[in-house]
Amino acid sequence: MITVLPVEGVPEVRPGDEIADLIAARIDLQDGDVVVVTQKIVSKAEGRLEPVADEDARRRLIERESVRVLRRREELIISETSQGFVCANAGVDLSNVDEGIAALLPDDADRSARHIRDALLARTGRQVAVVVSDTFGRPWRRGLVDVALGCAGIAAIVDLRGTADTRGRMLQATEVAVADEVASAAELVMGKDRDVPVAVVRGVDASWLREGSVRSEVVRPHGEDLFR
Amino acid sequence: MITVLPVEGVPEVRPGDEIADLIAARIDLQDGDVVVVTQKIVSKAEGRLEPVADEDARRRLIERESVRVLRRREELIISETSQGFVCANAGVDLSNVDEGIAALLPDDADRSARHIRDALLARTGRQVAVVVSDTFGRPWRRGLVDVALGCAGIAAIVDLRGTADTRGRMLQATEVAVADEVASAAELVMGKDRDVPVAVVRGVDASWLREGSVRSEVVRPHGEDLFR
Repeated sequence: MITVLPVEGVPEVRPGDEIADLIAARIDLQDGDVVVVTQKIVSKAEGRLEPVADEDARRRLIERESVRVLRRREELIISETSQGFVCANAGVDLSNVDEGIAALLPDDADRSARHIRDALLARTGRQVAVVVSDTFGRPWRRGLVDVALGCAGIAAIVDLRGTADTRGRMLQATEVAVADEVASAAELVMGKDRDVPVAVVRGVDASWLREGSVRSEVVRPHGEDLFR
Repeated sequence: MITVLPVEGVPEVRPGDEIADLIAARIDLQDGDVVVVTQKIVSKAEGRLEPVADEDARRRLIERESVRVLRRREELIISETSQGFVCANAGVDLSNVDEGIAALLPDDADRSARHIRDALLARTGRQVAVVVSDTFGRPWRRGLVDVALGCAGIAAIVDLRGTADTRGRMLQATEVAVADEVASAAELVMGKDRDVPVAVVRGVDASWLREGSVRSEVVRPHGEDLFR
């Protein structure tokens, strides 16, 4: 059984804040918990904020954060970021930040996750995993889902290839993106119109709790990508 | 708080089996539960099985199930199915079925979900929602995640556009694909190498529990799709 617990009452995050402190004061963590933290508050704590005076400034910022634009339609830009993510507007985000300010993606969200994980261990003595999540659209399917931008203490992908299925036949390709699924599960208690930027996913398979990296496991190299 | 419960001990499913019976005998459902059922057992119950003698037969079956091929590399075909899904090998699946047999996607997975929902209501008196899930790859990101092929009694997408964010600013585009996120959450207790084809997601926001449809809400019309 898995439980997904919202962490309520996290205050407004400012540059320099230690997110681990805000979490540790609000929930009793257990060993093996996966703490999911939305990109928004990670970016705020890391000071990844930029002023955007108008629509032109916003567009310039998106272009600066993009290494390549894949598609463009009216105000929407689908581009690849320097971190290798393909998403709308290079992750530049105007919601839930002050008027005239945009939040950018963390420079290295795996590192952000490791920092929070280590700080939680130091404060609570608990061995937890951390996923930094963001909300992405998808081709072909309407609607947004939360995915993992970075992780620490949990595999981004669990490779079940070569494991026999229940009939003893070898499974074909079954690399499950568990960090993404954990991010999606957490989103179910966060909502976009509520102020819940952190959730705890308790009870994941202990074998997944190894050192992981979204950047090296999930981001598809150009050569193997059929859609880049 | 949300809990995700595996439904253990579901036996091998055969054409004509009533999946609701297999579930109702194994878990006490509550009103508002979302019952997630993998496509594999839905396809088996509905008799969506075809013999595949060899690799050529498999390829012909994939082409028959596809309305359009988007990409092809060696044995992998990314195509659009008649249901409008874009996925690998048109959803034709050889794992966890008998040797020489392939499972095809349900003809109409929303209808499959409604059937299971109605049958569960008749047997248990419980008003539950149902999501039929499948395991899809994604462009740009490695690893597979479970998504919704069909749903009943739950919105596929919850539209939070126009809702004020916590600062009173209007949110831009925040249509959350909750049925997909529920499918991903359920996968966390299913695993691919265990025999857990059903899970219950308990505690989702009651406002999401309306009549929904993956086909009409999630499948992106060609005209608005930047990647089709």
